[in-house]
Amino acid sequence: MTSPKSGEILAAAMELFSRKGYAATSMRDIADAVGLQPGSLYAHIRSKEDLLVGIIEQVREAFLQNGESALADTSEPAADRLRRFIASHLQIIADNRASAEVFLHEWKSLEGEHLDEVRANRDRYEGMLVSLLQEGVNSGEFRNVDPHLTAVAVLSVVNWAYTWYRPDGPLSASDLGDHFTDLMISGIAQPNRSARRVSRR
Amino acid sequence: MTSPKSGEILAAAMELFSRKGYAATSMRDIADAVGLQPGSLYAHIRSKEDLLVGIIEQVREAFLQNGESALADTSEPAADRLRRFIASHLQIIADNRASAEVFLHEWKSLEGEHLDEVRANRDRYEGMLVSLLQEGVNSGEFRNVDPHLTAVAVLSVVNWAYTWYRPDGPLSASDLGDHFTDLMISGIAQPNRSARRVSRR
Repeated sequence: MTSPKSGEILAAAMELFSRKGYAATSMRDIADAVGLQPGSLYAHIRSKEDLLVGIIEQVREAFLQNGESALADTSEPAADRLRRFIASHLQIIADNRASAEVFLHEWKSLEGEHLDEVRANRDRYEGMLVSLLQEGVNSGEFRNVDPHLTAVAVLSVVNWAYTWYRPDGPLSASDLGDHFTDLMISGIAQPNRSARRVSRR
Repeated sequence: MTSPKSGEILAAAMELFSRKGYAATSMRDIADAVGLQPGSLYAHIRSKEDLLVGIIEQVREAFLQNGESALADTSEPAADRLRRFIASHLQIIADNRASAEVFLHEWKSLEGEHLDEVRANRDRYEGMLVSLLQEGVNSGEFRNVDPHLTAVAVLSVVNWAYTWYRPDGPLSASDLGDHFTDLMISGIAQPNRSARRVSRR
């Protein structure tokens, strides 16, 4: 996709997929949104699925760069890198609300190798967070949590934000990231041995 | 909805709304799934929206009962009640995967008073969790966290589970609830004063 029109088509598809869902959006809906006949769309794009893949790839690149940045400087405390990871993830969602929603929810409409690729990259991103948590466990900075379940919990908190977070509300993505990081970190930082044990049935 | 057929129609709609999305599911899809002509559906149900409302109401009742149960016995430590709240929420999702997905994602297709009602009940459920967290803060059992943001974080962790949790996998809903509760509780329980402070940029 290289023509100026194709960028406009992608933006229209992003808004429609986010609002109506991918399956319920027709090529006619997209054509109407950019003032073209449905048949003329094919001069600019190959298929509706191609548009979904394009949107997903954009957001995915932002997330993967976030993960790489959090892993890069191993001399930095894991807690600080986790704080950056969480804040940046929330910022990506804040800056790309429609495409983040499409990325997080509509990927399941993909099939075949596109679906495989989405799953592989999702696992890669999650794997970066698992590595970061494992580093913190290994260095003694974090207590001996299960890095996979902890990564899932962290990603749940930051991903679910697309359903309720409004960047024009009172909390910036960075403020929200600080709140969530404090909550998660205090949960995964090595507790003082004399700390009161929480009761468990 | 009282006829045996209407239960079958509701189950078919649940599966279709979960798999294809509400907007992309036609009355013909639902009719095909239960072996009726589309026109005959109206002998049993009023509209597609009515089916969505019915599914949402079922899951909502389960969640609200969970919230009420967690609030009921104020003599029980807040941490134990939070553990029950989290485990039961996950169990509801595990027992009702398709309808939970519809409840958590497809409600945005509702309009007017149905949408208002969904929002009001969602706020009510979140409010129950906020009250529980506030009780723990007031009693000194939890540190002075923001109960609203903490409730959002807890609900994010348990809600996002519908996207990845498989009840037939190695973890029961109860095991998963214990993991998540330990993670969240150790983050919100009053830390020992001498506990190592986590660095913050």
